[in-house]
Amino acid sequence: MTGAGDTFSFKVAARDGAARSGRIETPRGEILTPAFMPVGTAGTVKAMLPEHVRATGADIVLGNTYHLMLRPGAERVARLGGLHAFMNWPRPILTDSGGFQVMSLAQLRKLTEEGVAFQSHIDGSKHMLTPERSIEIQCLLGADIQMQLDECPAIPIAEDDARGSMELSLRWAKRSKAAFADFSAQGQALFGIVQGANYERLRRESLDGLMALDLSGYAVGGLAVGEGREEMFRVLEFTTPHMPADRPRYLMGVGKPADIVGAVARGIDMFDCVAPTRSGRHGQAWTRAGPINIKNAAFAEDDAPLDPESACPASRDYSKAYLHHLFRAGEYLGPMLLTWHNLQYYQDLMAGLRAAIASGSLADFIARFTNETGETLV
Amino acid sequence: MTGAGDTFSFKVAARDGAARSGRIETPRGEILTPAFMPVGTAGTVKAMLPEHVRATGADIVLGNTYHLMLRPGAERVARLGGLHAFMNWPRPILTDSGGFQVMSLAQLRKLTEEGVAFQSHIDGSKHMLTPERSIEIQCLLGADIQMQLDECPAIPIAEDDARGSMELSLRWAKRSKAAFADFSAQGQALFGIVQGANYERLRRESLDGLMALDLSGYAVGGLAVGEGREEMFRVLEFTTPHMPADRPRYLMGVGKPADIVGAVARGIDMFDCVAPTRSGRHGQAWTRAGPINIKNAAFAEDDAPLDPESACPASRDYSKAYLHHLFRAGEYLGPMLLTWHNLQYYQDLMAGLRAAIASGSLADFIARFTNETGETLV
Repeated sequence: MTGAGDTFSFKVAARDGAARSGRIETPRGEILTPAFMPVGTAGTVKAMLPEHVRATGADIVLGNTYHLMLRPGAERVARLGGLHAFMNWPRPILTDSGGFQVMSLAQLRKLTEEGVAFQSHIDGSKHMLTPERSIEIQCLLGADIQMQLDECPAIPIAEDDARGSMELSLRWAKRSKAAFADFSAQGQALFGIVQGANYERLRRESLDGLMALDLSGYAVGGLAVGEGREEMFRVLEFTTPHMPADRPRYLMGVGKPADIVGAVARGIDMFDCVAPTRSGRHGQAWTRAGPINIKNAAFAEDDAPLDPESACPASRDYSKAYLHHLFRAGEYLGPMLLTWHNLQYYQDLMAGLRAAIASGSLADFIARFTNETGETLV
Repeated sequence: MTGAGDTFSFKVAARDGAARSGRIETPRGEILTPAFMPVGTAGTVKAMLPEHVRATGADIVLGNTYHLMLRPGAERVARLGGLHAFMNWPRPILTDSGGFQVMSLAQLRKLTEEGVAFQSHIDGSKHMLTPERSIEIQCLLGADIQMQLDECPAIPIAEDDARGSMELSLRWAKRSKAAFADFSAQGQALFGIVQGANYERLRRESLDGLMALDLSGYAVGGLAVGEGREEMFRVLEFTTPHMPADRPRYLMGVGKPADIVGAVARGIDMFDCVAPTRSGRHGQAWTRAGPINIKNAAFAEDDAPLDPESACPASRDYSKAYLHHLFRAGEYLGPMLLTWHNLQYYQDLMAGLRAAIASGSLADFIARFTNETGETLV
């Protein structure tokens, strides 16, 4: 395993405007940044073998605390040797805090200063997720990068409400740090989450409060819930310039390729999103010319693969006509291949961004990307 | 590709009692016998990448004419370069005639001397499957081994009815051979199907009629529809001794591991069955000690893999606890891994049978198999 030491560290290797490329070192291996983390919600990147996730170029995957605490349970995963051994992924894992999924998936949830009480969407069982329990669970799972519990309100939200929520998240960040000191192992890292909706003064206050805690990395939260690309970029533009230059910056739950390209240009280092895996399962394939729906009748006799020049078997070895057939017939292999292809597309995009930043040619990369995909990034 | 010539041939290399081991040569590669053919119904072995099907040791896969003629359509597959290119499987493919699925899956089917008229179970469209059309479809698909259209009645059946059905199948065999002469390409092979239910005299008459057509191989049909292992073995015992020694013998739609072991001992060379793939999708794993249901609570914290000594990643790299979790959570990876494991189990079984026959130790192999699995084969 390259980069294996016993500490967590981050180094910026190159800059191009606000964009940075670099590497995070963890005891379980290095993470080249800007990095895209495939989402492995329930201990598996859906429809993917872990060796193929790695083969696409992924250095790290994300696990969802909410799902794993309910099934199979954090203590059970710990007894089975931790999440890495459980899911046969020896490289770095980032876990979220569970907070976002509790608020979007759980039943009868009740948020208090203490945390969130809720009932499982699986079996109705009652649970309490606090900042301390979230960190304990993430440590039981053995996550290399852990996230504080936060509250993540949707935009638009009134400023007073956004302030109250942000301040709660900040208090939870402090409690998370204390719990992390109790539970964590050598080389694990805790990230804080900047909240404050689309209010510049709130984002600054949130960031200042988190920086006072001297955390290993800082995430920007609350921007993956439908506020739109322009507003997301606007928030990043008044937030990332103030984030510590020597810590990784993680934009949570984002996004589509154009979101990622634009956010990298605004100084973000890490991303996660279900888009490539979820859309792959539903028949959408990302290509250099933008997304296509393989179920469309236009592909029924298209004997060209999605990308004949790709090193990825899923992109190279199967015709669009065959993929079309697999989705029409409801065959497992359709989601398997399109998920794999989409993850390869995303990792190729990240590799392209890293190379462009390293060579000082990000503007050219973005111009080519917007030209090919028809996307706008301003 | 090893064994690539431009003709179809079969050579027996070793015998042990009634059992034989050998090899079939085809223009697309060799098939070591006794062989198990994974079922790729709709142009895909369900939940498997073709390179992993091959990695288990499979030399040949089976495609279902009924499914492929309805979706995506034989002419479409031909325009796309044939079934091998379509499904990214360059090695031999055997296709059935479509008859068995028409009678079990199609709607409003009507059997006449001419063939079977039916409506698609997918979209209700009307079709006519005749011996000639079945061969034409199999040639459009490009199958290396093709099967005559037959009627395949369930046992028990009155002898008069069984005779009428067998004689129809024999007439269809003759028509199939004539169509095969018109449509087939160099190196493709046509197999006849011995019918006659569990009546010795009918099986002999069927076989005699087929042998007069001098076909490339002979299948035993009608034994995969629930008559029981003892009765199946009894039919084989009065049938296989009369089958040509220099042609492959194929027991259609069979079976479970114990069925295969017992049938090999009775002189069968080729098998196909959905058991390993279908049961894998439903959580059943074949092990040396017999089948287990991975969804059983007993496996929730079982950190041992299905077979730590296997070369197959699915058998070796994931704990039973993880597989249990994947099935409980409804994750794609569960069926993917258990299908892979089961196909590896089947191919390992075939390799073991071939080695035992080659070394004259089949009796020892069978004794160990029955001892480990608790199965009886007499």
